[in-house]
Amino acid sequence: MEFDTIAAISTPMGEGAIAIVRLSGEQAVQIADAVFKGVGNKRLVDQTSHTIHYGHIIDTKTEQVVEEVMVSLMKGPKTFTREDVVEINCHGGLVSVNRVLQLVLNHGARLAEPGEFTKRAFLNGRIDLSQAEAVMDLIRAKTDRAMNVAIGQMEGRLSKLIQGLRQEILETLAHVEVNIDYPEYDDVEEMTHQILVEKAAHVKTEIEKLIRTSQQGKILREGLSTVIVGRPNVGKSSLLNSLVHENKAIVTDIPGTTRDVIEEYVNVRGVPLRLVDTAGIRETEDIVERIGVERSRKVLKEADLILLVLNYSDELTQEDENLFKAVEGMDVIVIINKTDLPQQIDMDRVEELAKEHKVVTTSLLQEQGVDELEEAISSLFFEGEIEASDMTYVSNSRHIALLNQALQAIEEAIHGVEMGTPIDIVQIDLTRTWELLGEITGDSVHESLIDQLFSQFCLGK
Amino acid sequence: MEFDTIAAISTPMGEGAIAIVRLSGEQAVQIADAVFKGVGNKRLVDQTSHTIHYGHIIDTKTEQVVEEVMVSLMKGPKTFTREDVVEINCHGGLVSVNRVLQLVLNHGARLAEPGEFTKRAFLNGRIDLSQAEAVMDLIRAKTDRAMNVAIGQMEGRLSKLIQGLRQEILETLAHVEVNIDYPEYDDVEEMTHQILVEKAAHVKTEIEKLIRTSQQGKILREGLSTVIVGRPNVGKSSLLNSLVHENKAIVTDIPGTTRDVIEEYVNVRGVPLRLVDTAGIRETEDIVERIGVERSRKVLKEADLILLVLNYSDELTQEDENLFKAVEGMDVIVIINKTDLPQQIDMDRVEELAKEHKVVTTSLLQEQGVDELEEAISSLFFEGEIEASDMTYVSNSRHIALLNQALQAIEEAIHGVEMGTPIDIVQIDLTRTWELLGEITGDSVHESLIDQLFSQFCLGK
Repeated sequence: MEFDTIAAISTPMGEGAIAIVRLSGEQAVQIADAVFKGVGNKRLVDQTSHTIHYGHIIDTKTEQVVEEVMVSLMKGPKTFTREDVVEINCHGGLVSVNRVLQLVLNHGARLAEPGEFTKRAFLNGRIDLSQAEAVMDLIRAKTDRAMNVAIGQMEGRLSKLIQGLRQEILETLAHVEVNIDYPEYDDVEEMTHQILVEKAAHVKTEIEKLIRTSQQGKILREGLSTVIVGRPNVGKSSLLNSLVHENKAIVTDIPGTTRDVIEEYVNVRGVPLRLVDTAGIRETEDIVERIGVERSRKVLKEADLILLVLNYSDELTQEDENLFKAVEGMDVIVIINKTDLPQQIDMDRVEELAKEHKVVTTSLLQEQGVDELEEAISSLFFEGEIEASDMTYVSNSRHIALLNQALQAIEEAIHGVEMGTPIDIVQIDLTRTWELLGEITGDSVHESLIDQLFSQFCLGK
Repeated sequence: MEFDTIAAISTPMGEGAIAIVRLSGEQAVQIADAVFKGVGNKRLVDQTSHTIHYGHIIDTKTEQVVEEVMVSLMKGPKTFTREDVVEINCHGGLVSVNRVLQLVLNHGARLAEPGEFTKRAFLNGRIDLSQAEAVMDLIRAKTDRAMNVAIGQMEGRLSKLIQGLRQEILETLAHVEVNIDYPEYDDVEEMTHQILVEKAAHVKTEIEKLIRTSQQGKILREGLSTVIVGRPNVGKSSLLNSLVHENKAIVTDIPGTTRDVIEEYVNVRGVPLRLVDTAGIRETEDIVERIGVERSRKVLKEADLILLVLNYSDELTQEDENLFKAVEGMDVIVIINKTDLPQQIDMDRVEELAKEHKVVTTSLLQEQGVDELEEAISSLFFEGEIEASDMTYVSNSRHIALLNQALQAIEEAIHGVEMGTPIDIVQIDLTRTWELLGEITGDSVHESLIDQLFSQFCLGK
């Protein structure tokens, strides 16, 4: 395929040491040559691929030097997009990198849309859709585990599994087809029936396995929305601080929203906790007080994990009991804090209220019990799990939805066979399963979906 | 010189398409090889300089793939630092780039201090101090003009001027020395006197020229602190919006402060206006109301430029007259807004109050007069100036302070000669001038100053 030449700033906006303007397409090298003046007037088109060249970016109109740069020349097809790619490596100034971008646009490049470089890698067949999506997951990964999942997917682990299943379905379909076409053989019907049941059951099992990984996959990808609740003065902000301090906090601006919306991530043994409304806790020590009863109920309801903090050195109050009621049916870890002070709390009653929830005692003041707490958090979601890197986790909502639909289709196929449904009806369900799985890798997918998927990428990727 | 190997993330923090881990030093290539697995197991040490290599970063402990990368190999001395430099070009994820950094640190690299790469470029003699400082100015440049000044300085324009002056002083000193050593010649004293006066006067003139550029240089570098004042409802926020919309606003976080401190820059014909307390204007339309009389007086006092807005369709009030009094002696542009409405304002009185200040009439509603306003702003500070790119502007406060000290020293030398001071006393003043100028380029400068200067750089530069 041939496309026009696109360009964008591929480094995050901000003052940094390096900023990169990336070009990709047929004219990438020629356009770079038009603005680049290398040492000894060497031209990039004459250079070998995968080489680096020192020089200056010149505003051809004014003959002014705009930047001192290193230019990376990568000729297709061994590039990110499989096209010719040029990366202009600037001193990281906002104005100068914008000026460099403007110059290449003036010389015929088009400003890339978000995700357009990766989209080309997909359209040019270097990666499939699930791999492309993994590129973005990798960028947004909040913990090592999440990163491992993304890397695995980017390297094609999920793709291979899906391709394997699709191949299996295809072979089954072919087999059935043959049997239908040559009904002169004996026991054709029985054989077809047997093969169908066997193969479809296997595909179903594999899809189910993948779906089972999805809860954890989603947690790794998106973080565990976590709310800390408790009466005033039980140590909620101490808990928050010790989680943040022991594990480097990852504060991120969420793209597309105002800069006031800040989420705080804490990496607890590879599980990314997204701490909700931490500002409220820090400021008033009381989430309810700050955000109001109505909204706090909503916050609780949307949380994946509740950390319910009690005071070891105080008796249980009605408020504590109400909190237990409010979080009923959710994933809760009960933290009894202030064990450095004399016990006043009725532990039997706590165990009664906590029911099946894990109870951890801490003295955050003396930095005791935090390890146990982290262990509890980790094992609540990854009980007995092997390392994420050895598994293929499905983490993407789009993939999960498709797998669920594929599961339904294969179940219908199996049900059909069992009910003695005509074989061509069963074939339709099988084909549908095959197509749905293909949407994950992008083998069967609409163009509009592709556009929409890639538009969620960041600029310059 | 030989240094240990340093590493840092050289792209701005944030989600982006590309993130770079940069290594520099003796072991840069070996350390990169320890974590890099290229195609066909090729090793970076065996590759030629200035080439790019595709492969993966591997966690040697777990054998896990950490990232898919392009590695740029640049062997010294033709590099940014003159040392071996390796840049590991990652998919721009925060977690993965941090993990890559951690891996190279585990393999013997040391985390670079802010500015340490540039510091090495200086210590290894690739650039002098004023060039190194220009690198940072370039990164922080808010407009094209400021960028041009930084580029010129980075390319060594200021350095050459300063070196020329120092050479001149050195030759004069040598000449005087010879004359002192060989007093047997006739008219030695007279000749020495003459040369001294002549040369010193020339150096003085050149230093004065440079100092004269400094006001404009500082404006280009740091922006023009601008305050919009006026009664409620005269159109202050319209003015703000039209300045921001017509000229792309550059909103920057100021490093080292909380993320709440945001300055808004507007590029008006190459002059960066730093709009002060724009939040106040946006929120209440009244700077005084929001920040209080005391603080607003301070804000006014510290401003470089006042935009005083009056209402064309209203009579002048005592408040307007008070505003004129408050900004007396400052750089003011008077804006009479709302010319789309019937005139009520007494223009003669305005002219009287405005005195020498430029008066511009606008209808911001109808987008009229903004051009004239921008012209007024530009010509107030760059009256009849040639393009910034053709001049050497001194923009750095440190340089300006040194030039002023050098000027004083050379004046003392001249004064000494005129007063018949013994020639060895005059020599001291000349030597002092020579040293002060040398501090600009870093030829004579204390190590502690160097450390302090580079620590203001951003990480990874």
